[in-house]
Amino acid sequence: MKEATIVGAGLVGSLWAVYLSKAGYNVKIFERNSDMRRESFTAGKSINLATSYRGWKALDNVGIGDEIRKIAIPMYGRTIHDAAGNTTFHTYGVNNQAIFSVSRRELNCKLMDLAEQSGKTTFYFNELCTQVDLVNTISVFENSLSGKKTKIKSDVIFGTDGAFSAVRYNAMQKCDRFNYSQHYIEDGYREILLPANEDGTHKLHRDSLHIWPKGRFMLIALPNFDGSFTCTLFMPFEGHRHCFKNLTGKDKVEAFFKEVFPDFFELMPSVADSWEKHPLASLVIIKCFPWVQNNTALMGDAAHATVPFYGQGMNCGFEDCSVMWDLMNKHKENWTKIFEEYQLLRKPNGDAVQELSLQNYLVMRDKVADEEFLTQQKFEKRINELYPEKYLPLYSMVSFSDIEYSKALKLGNEQDAKIKEIINKYNIRNKSSIIEMDEVIHNLFNR
Amino acid sequence: MKEATIVGAGLVGSLWAVYLSKAGYNVKIFERNSDMRRESFTAGKSINLATSYRGWKALDNVGIGDEIRKIAIPMYGRTIHDAAGNTTFHTYGVNNQAIFSVSRRELNCKLMDLAEQSGKTTFYFNELCTQVDLVNTISVFENSLSGKKTKIKSDVIFGTDGAFSAVRYNAMQKCDRFNYSQHYIEDGYREILLPANEDGTHKLHRDSLHIWPKGRFMLIALPNFDGSFTCTLFMPFEGHRHCFKNLTGKDKVEAFFKEVFPDFFELMPSVADSWEKHPLASLVIIKCFPWVQNNTALMGDAAHATVPFYGQGMNCGFEDCSVMWDLMNKHKENWTKIFEEYQLLRKPNGDAVQELSLQNYLVMRDKVADEEFLTQQKFEKRINELYPEKYLPLYSMVSFSDIEYSKALKLGNEQDAKIKEIINKYNIRNKSSIIEMDEVIHNLFNR
Repeated sequence: MKEATIVGAGLVGSLWAVYLSKAGYNVKIFERNSDMRRESFTAGKSINLATSYRGWKALDNVGIGDEIRKIAIPMYGRTIHDAAGNTTFHTYGVNNQAIFSVSRRELNCKLMDLAEQSGKTTFYFNELCTQVDLVNTISVFENSLSGKKTKIKSDVIFGTDGAFSAVRYNAMQKCDRFNYSQHYIEDGYREILLPANEDGTHKLHRDSLHIWPKGRFMLIALPNFDGSFTCTLFMPFEGHRHCFKNLTGKDKVEAFFKEVFPDFFELMPSVADSWEKHPLASLVIIKCFPWVQNNTALMGDAAHATVPFYGQGMNCGFEDCSVMWDLMNKHKENWTKIFEEYQLLRKPNGDAVQELSLQNYLVMRDKVADEEFLTQQKFEKRINELYPEKYLPLYSMVSFSDIEYSKALKLGNEQDAKIKEIINKYNIRNKSSIIEMDEVIHNLFNR
Repeated sequence: MKEATIVGAGLVGSLWAVYLSKAGYNVKIFERNSDMRRESFTAGKSINLATSYRGWKALDNVGIGDEIRKIAIPMYGRTIHDAAGNTTFHTYGVNNQAIFSVSRRELNCKLMDLAEQSGKTTFYFNELCTQVDLVNTISVFENSLSGKKTKIKSDVIFGTDGAFSAVRYNAMQKCDRFNYSQHYIEDGYREILLPANEDGTHKLHRDSLHIWPKGRFMLIALPNFDGSFTCTLFMPFEGHRHCFKNLTGKDKVEAFFKEVFPDFFELMPSVADSWEKHPLASLVIIKCFPWVQNNTALMGDAAHATVPFYGQGMNCGFEDCSVMWDLMNKHKENWTKIFEEYQLLRKPNGDAVQELSLQNYLVMRDKVADEEFLTQQKFEKRINELYPEKYLPLYSMVSFSDIEYSKALKLGNEQDAKIKEIINKYNIRNKSSIIEMDEVIHNLFNR
């Protein structure tokens, strides 16, 4: 029998168990936490996630996409809230393209169920990975309830145990020539749950991602199925007029929302009471290489944790699964070949998704309120509409295609420079009519 | 009584114990390895080190400088060996300035003795640091011989346990918002001991640092007191015609030396036999921040390990001691204030010494064979000679002064651009006479 060990039963680990079961592996999956399907809450993780093309593709590969679509709320674009409380809506793509707000918890539970139903996967909870012998493919776990130690020998080990991966920390990081960095950005975040109206409806337009861009910081809101919104304030920890360090105590929190987000405060006058319900959390970018050692590989956040601003963390991790799956087929389960190609293929994409994520923080907190940016966005979407085969805006490459992240980043930057030139040259403005834009676009593409 | 715990009895830890003893602390110093004073060899560390101004200053501060000078060999400059076996000598500074080759082992043993003689320091060997409680200033050690665990509570803890610091790994790295990176450069190194002549004399000119620059790689040699030289080959691990990966087996090693270093091979025809005596080792740059958490601080390599190409690793670590000492006096042993200022002051210098080290690899392996570089070096040294108060070349700022590394780096780069301009403008050549150079220099500085 083919034996696989997965460390970490989060989103990527659970999905990967589904894949490996399908390939006929006996899968043992060890999770540090208790079984979230039996618990009432999940600590310290974001509540919902934006699933986009790559995520759906990886889910559809194992036939679970449609089930998740039932609990996914499409967000067709961004609703920008300005200082005066006015809103404008900007679609993400064309032809009703959308990213989808999904509950992390529901998705994770579903993936666990599905893996279990395969009959090939067994979950072990409260199992802390304390050691991995990378030479002999043996992992050691300590049960946090019983203290019992378990040693598992298998053919392959997958570390899908997140940004603070125990596989990486206990084993990989001790290898000679293992490059590693954990870099915290200056900003942290705090989640706030904006409750539903009494009749269960949403307090904001449901089918979009809401942003209150404030230049150096921002508030965002993603819809939940129950009518609530998960709102997140991203802001510097310290060193700025508006920073978490200055928001100590209910009075200051209330004054801050009244001054800075008056329209949000009106929707949720109790915001200061909810302030402490979710912890102030930090944001880290993790880079490392190599991702594989002998028969052990890192996937998802364990290999390339990023900041959440492009909504691509999970999508990129899920794509690790579909890519690994393709390589399993290509190399007929020769893990040495699979792993070698996997890391060479995916490392540049892990780096690129991190770069894209950082860039998009600037877009969300600042540029979405900028006339020039909006003009360019509108113009690019129109090109995409008219010449879908010839032009994809960067956002679409990342969210609505599976073009490699590294290629999207490179091409996106090249396009950006060219588009800016054209906009200038032809004097395109946000108020330019579709007819004016189309004329320029047709001229360009028919040359 | 004031209690201090030091983790790591290497060069910086042992020197710092001397300082703390002097300040009246009861010092407990825990070392993972056995007592090197009772062992015949030290594993995995370079054999000798170049001590320069900052190192001497820190040693002289505690009155040990002169004793070490007795076992230090001055290196007044670089002897460059070209492909034809010719040598040229270039002084490092003016007025007999030199850096000094010292045995790591002898220096470390001396520092240990001195710390013990203070009557305030106790060494504990074979003690692995397994845990540090940064909140309560408690460190936990496990004796590798007896398995016994010891818990030590003290007023302050210092992690001087090197590039792979257990204090950093077991405690600091687990703190939220702790930035950390370990980056291995592409190149590794292997040491080769060039024995003395039968009469005990040196096979190469004793009072200089020897370099065989080869562009992408290099061989260097530092003199030892017993007539031998510690030679080090720095080279890419793989991916180049000349790389360690290609040097498998005695035949290939011998052929490599015959082809690439014929003059060296003549001195040491047995080089291939000695090849395996020292391990192939990697080179890492470690960055982290913060360096302090409550009453625990990292010093030396634990905070800022660098590659060895400027010979500043130990010197920078020793300077951490003199700076911390000055801050202890300034802040009257208020450790909160000392530590805060220490890390703000030293972090930019840790970063700078790493940048300088990387830059100097290029200088040593490539530029020292370059006519333009040599011209500039000669010209700058002449300015330094004529206007010592007004001009210091970068190398002198780093090795013969205690100007902060960060300032030296910045000023050095500015100077570099200006000097290149002047050299061009006045057509200075390596063959220019002193009289020609002096005229230009006097004109510039008397304007």
